[in-house]
Amino acid sequence: MKTIATYGVIFCLLLVPIQLFGQRTDTTQSRPYETVAAQIVSDGLSSGKAFKLLQELTGKIGARLSGSPQASRAVEWGKKTMEELGFQNVHLESFMVPHWVRGTVESATIIRSSSERIAVNVCALGGSIGTPEAGITAEVVEVKSFDELHALGDKAKGKIIFFNRPLDKTKFNTFEAYGGAVDQRGQGAVEAAKVGGVAALVRSMTTRLDDVPHTGAMRYNDSIPKVPAAAISTIGANVLDSILSHAKRVELNLKLGCQSLPDVESANVVGELTGTEKPNEVIVIGGHLDSWDKGQGAHDDGAGSVQSLETLRLLKDLGLKPKRTIRAVLFMNEENGLRGGKAYAEKERPGERHIAAIETDAGGFSPRGFGVQADSLAIPKVAQWSYLFRRIDADRIERGGGGADISELGKKGVPAIGLRVDGQKYFDYHHSDNDTIDKVNERELELGATALAILSYVLAQEGI
Amino acid sequence: MKTIATYGVIFCLLLVPIQLFGQRTDTTQSRPYETVAAQIVSDGLSSGKAFKLLQELTGKIGARLSGSPQASRAVEWGKKTMEELGFQNVHLESFMVPHWVRGTVESATIIRSSSERIAVNVCALGGSIGTPEAGITAEVVEVKSFDELHALGDKAKGKIIFFNRPLDKTKFNTFEAYGGAVDQRGQGAVEAAKVGGVAALVRSMTTRLDDVPHTGAMRYNDSIPKVPAAAISTIGANVLDSILSHAKRVELNLKLGCQSLPDVESANVVGELTGTEKPNEVIVIGGHLDSWDKGQGAHDDGAGSVQSLETLRLLKDLGLKPKRTIRAVLFMNEENGLRGGKAYAEKERPGERHIAAIETDAGGFSPRGFGVQADSLAIPKVAQWSYLFRRIDADRIERGGGGADISELGKKGVPAIGLRVDGQKYFDYHHSDNDTIDKVNERELELGATALAILSYVLAQEGI
Repeated sequence: MKTIATYGVIFCLLLVPIQLFGQRTDTTQSRPYETVAAQIVSDGLSSGKAFKLLQELTGKIGARLSGSPQASRAVEWGKKTMEELGFQNVHLESFMVPHWVRGTVESATIIRSSSERIAVNVCALGGSIGTPEAGITAEVVEVKSFDELHALGDKAKGKIIFFNRPLDKTKFNTFEAYGGAVDQRGQGAVEAAKVGGVAALVRSMTTRLDDVPHTGAMRYNDSIPKVPAAAISTIGANVLDSILSHAKRVELNLKLGCQSLPDVESANVVGELTGTEKPNEVIVIGGHLDSWDKGQGAHDDGAGSVQSLETLRLLKDLGLKPKRTIRAVLFMNEENGLRGGKAYAEKERPGERHIAAIETDAGGFSPRGFGVQADSLAIPKVAQWSYLFRRIDADRIERGGGGADISELGKKGVPAIGLRVDGQKYFDYHHSDNDTIDKVNERELELGATALAILSYVLAQEGI
Repeated sequence: MKTIATYGVIFCLLLVPIQLFGQRTDTTQSRPYETVAAQIVSDGLSSGKAFKLLQELTGKIGARLSGSPQASRAVEWGKKTMEELGFQNVHLESFMVPHWVRGTVESATIIRSSSERIAVNVCALGGSIGTPEAGITAEVVEVKSFDELHALGDKAKGKIIFFNRPLDKTKFNTFEAYGGAVDQRGQGAVEAAKVGGVAALVRSMTTRLDDVPHTGAMRYNDSIPKVPAAAISTIGANVLDSILSHAKRVELNLKLGCQSLPDVESANVVGELTGTEKPNEVIVIGGHLDSWDKGQGAHDDGAGSVQSLETLRLLKDLGLKPKRTIRAVLFMNEENGLRGGKAYAEKERPGERHIAAIETDAGGFSPRGFGVQADSLAIPKVAQWSYLFRRIDADRIERGGGGADISELGKKGVPAIGLRVDGQKYFDYHHSDNDTIDKVNERELELGATALAILSYVLAQEGI
């Protein structure tokens, strides 16, 4: 067995020079794609615009939850920026979005005894109803799973349900760790209400121990009573857990001033480099323009928004003319409705055919490669270009991934490709006051854009 | 040509399952190394100690330049920590180190006119002589290279030579960019003196634009007069460049209070897990305990120091008993003398044979793989284990690298292996007040340690 593995590795090492001889040529440019890729990386790293655009978006506008005035201003900014960058067919595609507001009141106080009260940091989960003005005061019961909750039976009735299952830190892939815990945030309020709970308090979805609560989407079910839901910081969760483990009965007062207002109109921002030979074959490259109302939405997904703009900017400024259309889409409302992704996919576009959709929504960290959600024939068609990304250590092309905003296109059979990045820090910042531009490194952000530009361009020239 | 490349990629994709079948078994543990690697990663990410150790080193001791009281305390801390962690044969190996001190005075003032003065941020380069108390006031001449300097001839005489060639940002590999500019820092004072210059002012060695000067080692040549040398922040360098481009003559006053004191005794800190079958075959794993006197030496190289400790801690706490000896070495004086690396390599160790030396000195960022400096037969012997690092995306094993502290062992024919990490941010922090523990991510730091633990262990079991 040793022999097979060893020869395998040696063969792989030998393969690198073979690939160099096997590199393909961009007939439009009369140069190897390897040369085009080198130019894109060189231009991006020395005079890229992604970070400057992110400074504008986060500094002039900041957080921009769907339905907010800031989201409106972000749409205007996106359109104006595309026009200034000289994209073609710049326009808005509008639809209605939810309009949830946090309000000014947000607090949780552990009532340890009649005289001892401990404030812990919380924030409403997006979409939650508010509490009465005096808050909800009730005994807290801690669970790690819905099974454990339902096994409590009547003991959960009238209680605040504290969902305290942490992200599994042993997982290298932090998105998997997140996926293994986020049911508590999304579905916690519904499951709490099913057993007669009066509120849901959910441990923040982060691998980090700090005192910052992380918000995010939660859902209600029309057939189940609505109860308020909040995230508690991981330090706060540990404090509450510790108190609960030493006391027979602990009460908590939860006050949330949040509410849902009527839907308002918003839009995706769309612009493109129209294909010179097959303009009706389209490659979408997008991130989402909305963010949660915490921090500045710098990594999530200001980074992906500016990378989508920078992808086209890089190609345009380098004089690269794609044969097929490359279209940047700044999606609205990824965070709490996905209305933008759905609206884009549902819109009639006579004569057009999407050959691929690429999303960047994993933070502006160093790129590692791409995840391809497509039929098994399409994956090697993308993987054949991996050698172009080796120069920036982003040549890992694997099955799976894609992204939320392009998932609706994916359902229609369009290959959905997601930029994969170094994800170790993503959930330190995600959906919280930590997500600010000082956490974004200019070079890492730009490298992601160069990877997207190389992939978009080669797919535009060669198809998939 | 297309066909070869395409089949190559497809073959590589097919290779992954072949490698799974081809994975090798640790006979001591009676389990595949793949399983051992998974345990190391899982333990490290959930209950690793690297970050806690770095908090101690940076928080209790801070920056620790060779010869300083802090470096002494770091040596004591290293020995005590190894003892507490239960390493074997814990001891110090002592030698003399340089003792350079920065002093309290450090300033540069651009004298634009008799009434207009502009302060810019500078710091002495390590090893520089000081200026007279009133400083050196002289006209500034800017050059981008030594060739440009020497072409000036007599025009450079009596001037402060401003070396302003930036790091080449187009390079993906920031260490290459650094390597392309650092001659100005190391050799600038000598070259300035050769043409009669009175001081050297060097643009900070960073890819970032900010107002923090970055120190680092400089050299004198006994046959050339010594002139003071300082680093100027990149923002300061741009200001000075701009002023010089608009004025016929610009003077600058440079004050440095630094000086060299007599050498003092210091030591490498050494401890090991003694091999159960071949104790005299040794694998060294090390980082350097000294740092510059700016910031906290968190990434450079507190990170590598604690990762070296954590490598042995992981193996020990998981009950993994290496057949060959794995020895942690906290090297002293990497930054300004390399006396520790030299002393370690020169010491007589009767009966012992070093089979590999591994160094971690590129910052506590996400690991990407290893660079192997060895003969062409040794490289595939390391590369055969790349599949063990795939689970943490650190499976890129390439020729080259190694590290400064193990370079002396390398000269004696010992394969020298360096941990490679994501290096985009390294020079943002390097040798400056920016290098503090808040720039280190616990998971990324620990992942580096797990990569080192896996490699050390498999080499201890299988040899090289």
